[in-house]
Amino acid sequence: MTTSVPSRPFELYDATLRDGMQGEGMSLSAEEKLRVARKLDELGVHLIEAGFPASNPKEQELFALLAQETWESSRIAAFGMTRRRDVRADQDPALRILADCFCDVTTIVGKTWGLHLEKVVRVDPAENLRLIADSVAFLVGEGKRVIYDAEHFFDAWRDDREYAHRCLRAAVEAGADTITLCDTNGSSLPMQVHEAVRAVVDELGEHVRVGIHAHDDAGCGVANSLLAVQAGATHVQGTTNGIGERTGNANLTTITADLELKMGIRSLPEGRLAKLTETAHFVDELLNRPPRTTQPYVGRNAFAHKGGLHVAGIRADASTFEHVDPATVGNARDVLVSELAGKGTVIEKAAEAGLSVDDAQAVRIIDRVKELEHRGYQFEAADGSFELLLRRETGTYDPLFTLESWRVIVEQRAGGQVETEATIKIWIGDERFVRTAEGNGPVHALDRALRSAIGQVHPHLSDIELVNFKVRILDETKGTGAVTRVLIDASDGNRTWGSIGVGENLIGASWDALVESLAWAEQPGRRGPQLAAAPAEVESA
Amino acid sequence: MTTSVPSRPFELYDATLRDGMQGEGMSLSAEEKLRVARKLDELGVHLIEAGFPASNPKEQELFALLAQETWESSRIAAFGMTRRRDVRADQDPALRILADCFCDVTTIVGKTWGLHLEKVVRVDPAENLRLIADSVAFLVGEGKRVIYDAEHFFDAWRDDREYAHRCLRAAVEAGADTITLCDTNGSSLPMQVHEAVRAVVDELGEHVRVGIHAHDDAGCGVANSLLAVQAGATHVQGTTNGIGERTGNANLTTITADLELKMGIRSLPEGRLAKLTETAHFVDELLNRPPRTTQPYVGRNAFAHKGGLHVAGIRADASTFEHVDPATVGNARDVLVSELAGKGTVIEKAAEAGLSVDDAQAVRIIDRVKELEHRGYQFEAADGSFELLLRRETGTYDPLFTLESWRVIVEQRAGGQVETEATIKIWIGDERFVRTAEGNGPVHALDRALRSAIGQVHPHLSDIELVNFKVRILDETKGTGAVTRVLIDASDGNRTWGSIGVGENLIGASWDALVESLAWAEQPGRRGPQLAAAPAEVESA
Repeated sequence: MTTSVPSRPFELYDATLRDGMQGEGMSLSAEEKLRVARKLDELGVHLIEAGFPASNPKEQELFALLAQETWESSRIAAFGMTRRRDVRADQDPALRILADCFCDVTTIVGKTWGLHLEKVVRVDPAENLRLIADSVAFLVGEGKRVIYDAEHFFDAWRDDREYAHRCLRAAVEAGADTITLCDTNGSSLPMQVHEAVRAVVDELGEHVRVGIHAHDDAGCGVANSLLAVQAGATHVQGTTNGIGERTGNANLTTITADLELKMGIRSLPEGRLAKLTETAHFVDELLNRPPRTTQPYVGRNAFAHKGGLHVAGIRADASTFEHVDPATVGNARDVLVSELAGKGTVIEKAAEAGLSVDDAQAVRIIDRVKELEHRGYQFEAADGSFELLLRRETGTYDPLFTLESWRVIVEQRAGGQVETEATIKIWIGDERFVRTAEGNGPVHALDRALRSAIGQVHPHLSDIELVNFKVRILDETKGTGAVTRVLIDASDGNRTWGSIGVGENLIGASWDALVESLAWAEQPGRRGPQLAAAPAEVESA
Repeated sequence: MTTSVPSRPFELYDATLRDGMQGEGMSLSAEEKLRVARKLDELGVHLIEAGFPASNPKEQELFALLAQETWESSRIAAFGMTRRRDVRADQDPALRILADCFCDVTTIVGKTWGLHLEKVVRVDPAENLRLIADSVAFLVGEGKRVIYDAEHFFDAWRDDREYAHRCLRAAVEAGADTITLCDTNGSSLPMQVHEAVRAVVDELGEHVRVGIHAHDDAGCGVANSLLAVQAGATHVQGTTNGIGERTGNANLTTITADLELKMGIRSLPEGRLAKLTETAHFVDELLNRPPRTTQPYVGRNAFAHKGGLHVAGIRADASTFEHVDPATVGNARDVLVSELAGKGTVIEKAAEAGLSVDDAQAVRIIDRVKELEHRGYQFEAADGSFELLLRRETGTYDPLFTLESWRVIVEQRAGGQVETEATIKIWIGDERFVRTAEGNGPVHALDRALRSAIGQVHPHLSDIELVNFKVRILDETKGTGAVTRVLIDASDGNRTWGSIGVGENLIGASWDALVESLAWAEQPGRRGPQLAAAPAEVESA
């Protein structure tokens, strides 16, 4: 799809660290924000909005850290607002802080909508124009590149188009480099955005860069941004993974891929688009936010095909069903295993694990998967457990040990800590092991006890770390009582694999998942060297 | 925003039960699908796509159930495909099944894209036109209303517009009532969709209803559907909450609200829009899918304001910051508590709980919240615990008991079940209680033991059910070791409240959340009648 080539260089403006932090549960330390900024710099976005340099100690610390960094692709933008009404711009303390900040890019937001002038800030429209002009002029005079964010622009434009344009002109005449039209409450639809942006570009596009800042309240954050670009905007503000208040900001991750892959607009430096997925996942990890598996381009399932027909098509020619090649954004195709999959999927997954299964075995495996799924198992996130299932069905599963018993005791006395102790009794060959370990929780204690035993025979197990632990209580109305599903991700530093345990008891389900995590790492073809077991004796770890 | 009034009645087509089921982890029993269909009928969508009536035993069972129901607003559509190439339409077994089905609406999908004809199904383009025409004509002859889904339509239109239109004409001339243009791989952008739909409506809009079926691979599923309507489509296919394969189908929940509230298009019967939120939540519950809190219109946070300025604005006049009134879609405003909130938020939340706090207390409470949040607490989903925090800070907290100790033992022997036993020792006033209970898991056992004790003094606690239990392991890189956050939702049949526990030990954190769940229900002003405690003795429950 061709679009008129922008007359100005195109800019991506990532507001994750400021606007994104308004989302529920979003919270990062200054150090974590620095790490996010470095990652965004690696990706190559042009501008990173970091916040207001002195609103609280965390922000001050952040700006001190940012000032010391060398940035390869990105510039850091400080964020603030127009001056207070009763103060000159050069005496407004907040503007002074922005002026003194190391950032040479400053974004300030100002009012555009009559409703806000009247009811929220109680400022006369004429005075508002002076607030805008004074503030922008002051910062330009201090040597800053000024980006002016026109708040609630689209509501304002629909209400009083003429005044909305006057606000923008005030900023432009005062020296703003960019005017960003903000759909602050996410109320606008794509055609409305296109119309208003077009009008602004027609009037002011020769003198200033026009930008867009959309939200997703109507489910159109991405589309609104793209339509704005089509209408002539060359600056797009959004957040990584679309985090932000309410329904979130426009998803800059999706927008970036759409611009490059579908609109022919280079928005990142050459070759950086392939870092999109890792950047998105990194930010989710730091935010401790479960990644949205259905997120366009970078979600784990963005290219995952479940239906049998689709899978057959993919194997023939990927372009028959995939809208883009996942590798361009650093993602991968993934074929799901489930009751809708066919023999072809199973054979392919087995081959990935170095196993060969014939048609009859594949059919049996599918039946087994369906049966387990009815009991609450889900293998899409538990590739390790799925491989063990394949091995059990093909007679190539090598259990690490035989269980005699396990037990966990957790207790707390008034005023004391919670204490956890696990005891396991297992057999490896002829050798019986009894191990007791303490831990900061039941799974931790069981893991330590178990590995202190089998680790004697399989020393490489000490390289494994349990990196993720998820618990989900399944639907009670299914009549089997509440069933718990536990997913554990384990990693040896190179690979990460998932395992699953299902049962009525959370600890029991955790035990099963734990055993599968370790067993996967030591299957034939993958295991490290083994040692002879030491004589059986009771030990504590 | 005005749109040309559609010449045909507008239709919403919900494909949750067929296309939606292709999404990862989406799986429903026949009984559950019936419940979803009833819920959609209550909402008032025009068409419910139920699946192919005989692809497997679950589907056959489903159609038998659907056939027996009386539907108030919706019609059930059966779904299939064009005939096989080597068979006459009236002898194609799948078309025969569709013809015999009780549904008088049948949707069939057929090929449009040359790439697929060549590489996936290996059918000559001319023959493809006959497949389409024969299949549609056969079903029309059997008395069905036929909806023809043109698969991969937009890719096909971009490749070979003329042939794509010929495929549609073949369906129209054979008697199809609706032609649905499907963006099957989600590759299209809004302007592309608008252009193609406009061309189809121009050519065929007088003879047939034009529909749209979008996906979200480019993040534009909703926008594409709205732009299609703007171009003249009067039939929109999507899924509730946008579930579906890969990134999901176009989100019909969002689309419905956008059409009614922003485009002035009546798409549901009068007054039904207010059922939107409960419908969306119901479907997520049945799918056992954690609801997306950021989902437009119906998400828990869709109208939740965190930033201090926004909260001040909302209190002044909701339209200053909200794009629509949440009540129109059956949702509610919610003001989050967090480190970004101000005194106003705290005072408001306290008032909701019937407590009054002054400014100084509010400041102290905010500090306490920030401190706890740094340790891993999050109160947005734990309104019960937040109220207890307010009570502790204002001296109005009444603890149910004094803890002496608690202990949980979980064990399993080879070949046996997992067994769980909890013992609690508490004091209520002068009375000491020692209780032991078994359970299907640690929290269940602790709950039974605890309630068997305090339930003697507070009998109304027996009305409470723990309805949700979530565990999250927090970020290890914060240096405090892995911290676990447990959220429990409890309900007395009327209200539901959330409580939170945080700590290194999962069972310890669960105990804290459990205690808060029960304590909340029995605070002054809320509690039921109390009984004198029985003499202290060791009992088992």
